[in-house]
Amino acid sequence: MKLPEHGSNPQYTYRAMDISMPDQIVDLSANINSSGPPDRLKKIWQDLLEEIVTYPDPHSVSLRRKIARKEGVLEEEILIGNGGAELIHLIGRWLAHSNVLIIHPTFSEYEKACRINDCTIHHLLLEENDWDLGSKKLAAYLSKVDAVFICNPTNPTGLLYSASKIKEIVKEAHKEHCYVIVDEAFYDFPLEEVTVAHLVKEYSNLLVLRSMTKMFSIPGIRLGFLMAGETVVKELGTYQVHWSVNGIAQKVGETLLEETDFVYHTKYMVKREREKLFAFFDQSRFDYSPSQTNFYLLKDPDLNDQTELFRFLLENGIVSRHTQNFKGLDGRWLRFAIKGKKEHEKLMDALTEWKSHP
Amino acid sequence: MKLPEHGSNPQYTYRAMDISMPDQIVDLSANINSSGPPDRLKKIWQDLLEEIVTYPDPHSVSLRRKIARKEGVLEEEILIGNGGAELIHLIGRWLAHSNVLIIHPTFSEYEKACRINDCTIHHLLLEENDWDLGSKKLAAYLSKVDAVFICNPTNPTGLLYSASKIKEIVKEAHKEHCYVIVDEAFYDFPLEEVTVAHLVKEYSNLLVLRSMTKMFSIPGIRLGFLMAGETVVKELGTYQVHWSVNGIAQKVGETLLEETDFVYHTKYMVKREREKLFAFFDQSRFDYSPSQTNFYLLKDPDLNDQTELFRFLLENGIVSRHTQNFKGLDGRWLRFAIKGKKEHEKLMDALTEWKSHP
Repeated sequence: MKLPEHGSNPQYTYRAMDISMPDQIVDLSANINSSGPPDRLKKIWQDLLEEIVTYPDPHSVSLRRKIARKEGVLEEEILIGNGGAELIHLIGRWLAHSNVLIIHPTFSEYEKACRINDCTIHHLLLEENDWDLGSKKLAAYLSKVDAVFICNPTNPTGLLYSASKIKEIVKEAHKEHCYVIVDEAFYDFPLEEVTVAHLVKEYSNLLVLRSMTKMFSIPGIRLGFLMAGETVVKELGTYQVHWSVNGIAQKVGETLLEETDFVYHTKYMVKREREKLFAFFDQSRFDYSPSQTNFYLLKDPDLNDQTELFRFLLENGIVSRHTQNFKGLDGRWLRFAIKGKKEHEKLMDALTEWKSHP
Repeated sequence: MKLPEHGSNPQYTYRAMDISMPDQIVDLSANINSSGPPDRLKKIWQDLLEEIVTYPDPHSVSLRRKIARKEGVLEEEILIGNGGAELIHLIGRWLAHSNVLIIHPTFSEYEKACRINDCTIHHLLLEENDWDLGSKKLAAYLSKVDAVFICNPTNPTGLLYSASKIKEIVKEAHKEHCYVIVDEAFYDFPLEEVTVAHLVKEYSNLLVLRSMTKMFSIPGIRLGFLMAGETVVKELGTYQVHWSVNGIAQKVGETLLEETDFVYHTKYMVKREREKLFAFFDQSRFDYSPSQTNFYLLKDPDLNDQTELFRFLLENGIVSRHTQNFKGLDGRWLRFAIKGKKEHEKLMDALTEWKSHP
């Protein structure tokens, strides 16, 4: 059995590695807020039962209205999706047969969505260790391709590129009639809120993706949204399945948009835990990516392929995300989510033990 | 504003007809069991909260295992969908650029899914009033097209074709290398359980669709499944979005598969209510389709277009489904769901008043 394409669902990772899964595991393979959903969700849960007996609003009007107000865009500039993954696949369908640039390492669904829609895919591999986006190669590509995917903060490195850097690319791409899809799925986690969403009014070639499942720990319910010019939103909508976004997700989304305190506290928790971990990695001679968000890449510089460490951690009940299907990483790193104090103590204990191996 | 493409979400119907929506309405536009979800669902609802904090199993293994056991097919012959609508769209994507036959009147999503995937669509309009499937025209088409959609029981007429009739078509189509998609979304409602699901082992050209949202009143949560040969299931799966089926739907599905008593009682309730309504229609001179399921077509034979009756009912708080986007009906009928005693008393009162108009 092959290693799974994504983090989460650790049972598949254990099966693929032929290791029996311990009863207690620390799952750091999925980049989900470890605080769990806000208390408010637990309070309204019983009332949500009534949402399942009617068809969901196929246009998610009420949720779109609230997002529009919060993000300062028009309702017509928003498309709600059955998770960010559905929106990425709608974009793939919309781009069918085009020339698409994918900047690696990055989330693997962009390539998958474009590939099944017969796009010609061009790959730009960023320089390992600093993963700098400022290369002249990217600028050269913009005149050759119809669309480019940028993930910011980037999954899996955790790097956060400045809004002015992204704007520069969008502006340049606009001249070349090239769409720029900026996936801001992890927008909520860095202290500084870096976004280009407000630019959709100005640049008709810009599409911005967001996810609500990561910050609010609701990946089981599927909810993401897209912001872009009205024409693009309409075109993408023609490919969307009727009632694609379930009724619970719509209501949960409306409620969670108001949870600003929860987001604030999470940002600080993530920063604190990240700094603690990075200090430990410096001290214990592990390399890591200069992440500004809720996950990071890690490697033991004494190994090239990290499978041995991956296996050791799994055996000790710690699940990281392999990087074998991330182009430009090819297994040379492991990805870890930032969770809470207890999980990190276990991780640091295991890594200390690993380093003490003969 | 155009009339909505589907039943349910009555606010859009009222808006399109420029009628203000009364506080109390009887919504007969969506073919959903009026008994509401089984009590068991209410009991387990609180526990389902834990399903939202992790990513759903992208392969729905546990649910597929239970369906396989119940339907007598292999797990590998099942694909779970984010509602039947997603499965129809996956089929459309899979059939891209093919020649497809659609038998009308029928559910409008088949055509939509094929159209956005650039299929060449052929239309076979069944003879109004008896909608007999036994025409020689259908047989002649099978050698010309790559796939044909059959809805059984048929939405919107409620007609139920025999399993032997469907098998005959599947067998003939198999010789001609033509796929047959049999949508059994309303399979649960007729007293007699008519299905061709067991034939997927024998006929590699057969795809059978089912929905769990109608019988169990859970359209808000989105859940359907498909049965077909392993190769077809695998091919369709390549187009499916990762984590498309949310975690709540998977767990709810597993629970509801065991609700056999609930299904049994619903079947009898539907039969009883249908017979009562049809007796009333005979007496009050309304025409109706010979439905064997939980919805039917109705018309006042004194009108050609039924918009006037549609409007009258809306004004009286009764929402039926217009048929203007059903080819072969074109507004000459209205569709009504079979619900409970109270709803039907209101409907019969309104229809009596309608007939007493000068």
